Amino acid sequence: MSDSIIKPQTLRGFRDFLPEMMIPRLQLMEQARTVYSHYGFSPIDTPALEYSKILLGKGGDESDKQLFRFIDQGDRDVAMRFDLTVPFARFAAQHIPQLGTPFKRYHIAPVWRGERPARGRYREFLQCDFDTIGTESIAADIETVLVIHDLLHAIGLKKFTIHVNHRQLLNGVLEQHGLLDRTVPLLRALDKLPKIGEENVITEMKQTAQVNDAQAKAVLELAALKGEADAVLEQARPLVANSERGQAALEALHQLTSTCLEIGIASEQLHLDLSIARGLDYYTGTIFETFLDDLPGIGSICSGGRYDDLAGLFTKQKLPGVGASLGLDRLLAALEELGRLDAVGTTSQVLVTQFDANHLADYQKISRRIHQADIASEVYPEAKAIGKQLKYANKKKIPLAIIAGTQEFNDQNWQLKDLRKGTQTTLNDTDLIEKIKQLLSSSDNIQ
Amino acid sequence: MSDSIIKPQTLRGFRDFLPEMMIPRLQLMEQARTVYSHYGFSPIDTPALEYSKILLGKGGDESDKQLFRFIDQGDRDVAMRFDLTVPFARFAAQHIPQLGTPFKRYHIAPVWRGERPARGRYREFLQCDFDTIGTESIAADIETVLVIHDLLHAIGLKKFTIHVNHRQLLNGVLEQHGLLDRTVPLLRALDKLPKIGEENVITEMKQTAQVNDAQAKAVLELAALKGEADAVLEQARPLVANSERGQAALEALHQLTSTCLEIGIASEQLHLDLSIARGLDYYTGTIFETFLDDLPGIGSICSGGRYDDLAGLFTKQKLPGVGASLGLDRLLAALEELGRLDAVGTTSQVLVTQFDANHLADYQKISRRIHQADIASEVYPEAKAIGKQLKYANKKKIPLAIIAGTQEFNDQNWQLKDLRKGTQTTLNDTDLIEKIKQLLSSSDNIQ
Repeated sequence: MSDSIIKPQTLRGFRDFLPEMMIPRLQLMEQARTVYSHYGFSPIDTPALEYSKILLGKGGDESDKQLFRFIDQGDRDVAMRFDLTVPFARFAAQHIPQLGTPFKRYHIAPVWRGERPARGRYREFLQCDFDTIGTESIAADIETVLVIHDLLHAIGLKKFTIHVNHRQLLNGVLEQHGLLDRTVPLLRALDKLPKIGEENVITEMKQTAQVNDAQAKAVLELAALKGEADAVLEQARPLVANSERGQAALEALHQLTSTCLEIGIASEQLHLDLSIARGLDYYTGTIFETFLDDLPGIGSICSGGRYDDLAGLFTKQKLPGVGASLGLDRLLAALEELGRLDAVGTTSQVLVTQFDANHLADYQKISRRIHQADIASEVYPEAKAIGKQLKYANKKKIPLAIIAGTQEFNDQNWQLKDLRKGTQTTLNDTDLIEKIKQLLSSSDNIQ
Repeated sequence: MSDSIIKPQTLRGFRDFLPEMMIPRLQLMEQARTVYSHYGFSPIDTPALEYSKILLGKGGDESDKQLFRFIDQGDRDVAMRFDLTVPFARFAAQHIPQLGTPFKRYHIAPVWRGERPARGRYREFLQCDFDTIGTESIAADIETVLVIHDLLHAIGLKKFTIHVNHRQLLNGVLEQHGLLDRTVPLLRALDKLPKIGEENVITEMKQTAQVNDAQAKAVLELAALKGEADAVLEQARPLVANSERGQAALEALHQLTSTCLEIGIASEQLHLDLSIARGLDYYTGTIFETFLDDLPGIGSICSGGRYDDLAGLFTKQKLPGVGASLGLDRLLAALEELGRLDAVGTTSQVLVTQFDANHLADYQKISRRIHQADIASEVYPEAKAIGKQLKYANKKKIPLAIIAGTQEFNDQNWQLKDLRKGTQTTLNDTDLIEKIKQLLSSSDNIQ
């Protein structure tokens, strides 16, 4: 077959995950699952392929979504999901009558978008969403903040800020200035603030929403408010003095932030930021974005908000809810950039070398006893020169090795080598496992 | 929007996973990951989409593979993976120069096949493969058996039998009868033995491989041997007395089974079964299938074997290896059929009810203290009538509930309700967590 090799390559914008990236990626997924589960969110899954009309909805702009879309063997117009929100809306419409409300789900799964690939942007990436639907209670919004907070702490990222806003606060300012009919162009312009700056935003607002200078500045005055909750709420109050919806939004933000602080969230980790707009049509209440203090440039790593109606396209049942989406692959890139990844080639902690192939059963027996202590341990598959076997351990960054030859089998003991320090100890069966536990727990960078 | 609802539905052959199935499915995946990791297999991932020519290989028969294949936005001929073996071959050709050998990987991911859907057969399903490549050592074959064994024990399925055969033993019989040039049609016929019976297999062998009665019977004589290793090896020996490859295969099977028994595998869980043929072109050495004693009808739940060359299509580097694939979705169906699934709607163990919305911070504080004990606990999002909140807990099968109203907050204690028994206890902050742990550990069917 070697006369006509097919060149092994992935498609543009797609990538393989080698163990050194897949191990921390699985760890992140596991940490997310743990925190979501702790808060009572249940896992679901939906198909990678759906009817295109379901993913596109009505008036869906296909080019926006960059669907991988095709006609299947049964002549159906199908596409690969481009997010987890639309499939969840379809899922909710189908299953909520059976599942009941409130319903709390999480969903960790890949999505596909045929966007132009760029640094950190792929055509296949993981989304990691959690939502509570079927309740309008602010308690669910508060819980969303707690989940984001606890998740980042669980990952070990303690320097972050959750930015919170409320869509009705923006609408309140617009109402106060008689601009409610121009919400969409105004918010679209506002969304660009961090990218194009205040002056360009004003220019665009004037062009697309026919506002005057004073009106544009009023919107930007609100958007300029950010920082710890009490101060921002105080400054925002006069800006929505004549708008009921604005007042109600301020009250919701007050309740959210004061409850979170009472629960124990540090005030520097929960800021109001009245500039964030996110999702022009979808979100209707609180909005969240989360930034790493050390890496603001990578953008929000966990975003979401409250919506009035999840599944209006698919059911007449109104399903309000709130949720957020963790950018797991972005977070992985951040951890790498912060030097927080160990980049090990395996999770093995012990390599049991094979000195004498006739003793394979003994090597596997001790290795399996190590598994009983929930420690990963592998037997090298060949009775090669010990040096070659240890080279394998070093390449994979396996910290410990066990060696036993004729002498050790006669004496019924084991040589335990700490490959990080080059030290070696002779131990009997009983002491070996304890010593392994001890050596592994004394190390900092063992996962 | 409600005037033109899009009917919410999945594609034929695809399905949603609701929490009651997704929770045990994730549990199975986690159990597989744990056992694979214990043995030093590292996780990898590859893209869902690949170039069609990579998935099809040379001479690949597309109709066999029922590819979801299409032309993408960049005019590339692409397809969704139909298994994890071909992507692993492509991956190995690309990355083994960097990763080195031996290389042990596992890969748990969905695959897609446009087959006609049937009971238990879907167009999207999980595969769960593990392989050791870059070594010809029988130690890796033995380890494959240990992994299958330990995995099923971890899942709690103790009544199973791993069936082992060796392709060269079959070839040895064919060699002994001068039939080596007719291996493919003979094995194809043999593969049908459990379905069509001995007589029909003989008829097919005669037709497609032009063998005589005696020759067909010789093949079937070997295939009839099954059971505990020593007896089968004894009976097989004369059947390959004149074939060197047959003798070598017997020796390999002897080494594999005797080592496994020495390690502690029960002899009734490791049988030789000289009828299994699996994969006409791919496997070249040991072959494995695994059956549940209580559900033989669902077929093999973990199958695999040894191959000479994983990635010949993509590289000149010869990569021999051995591995197996766990049929995770089939196993899930089996657990359901055996009544081993709890079918809970959530992993929450505690519902903190909201009696007084003004105390939301207190409810979340106690719930988060329960999380610290690694116990899932959720706060009901609304201060509804307690009866309605408990109804939610009962529907989701949450075993415990906490209630605190004015009286309890005054007295600084909590009501803990065991919803399974209807009992209720008054506890202070300090005792609450301990009591929860105690109630949960005393239950049989808490996960």
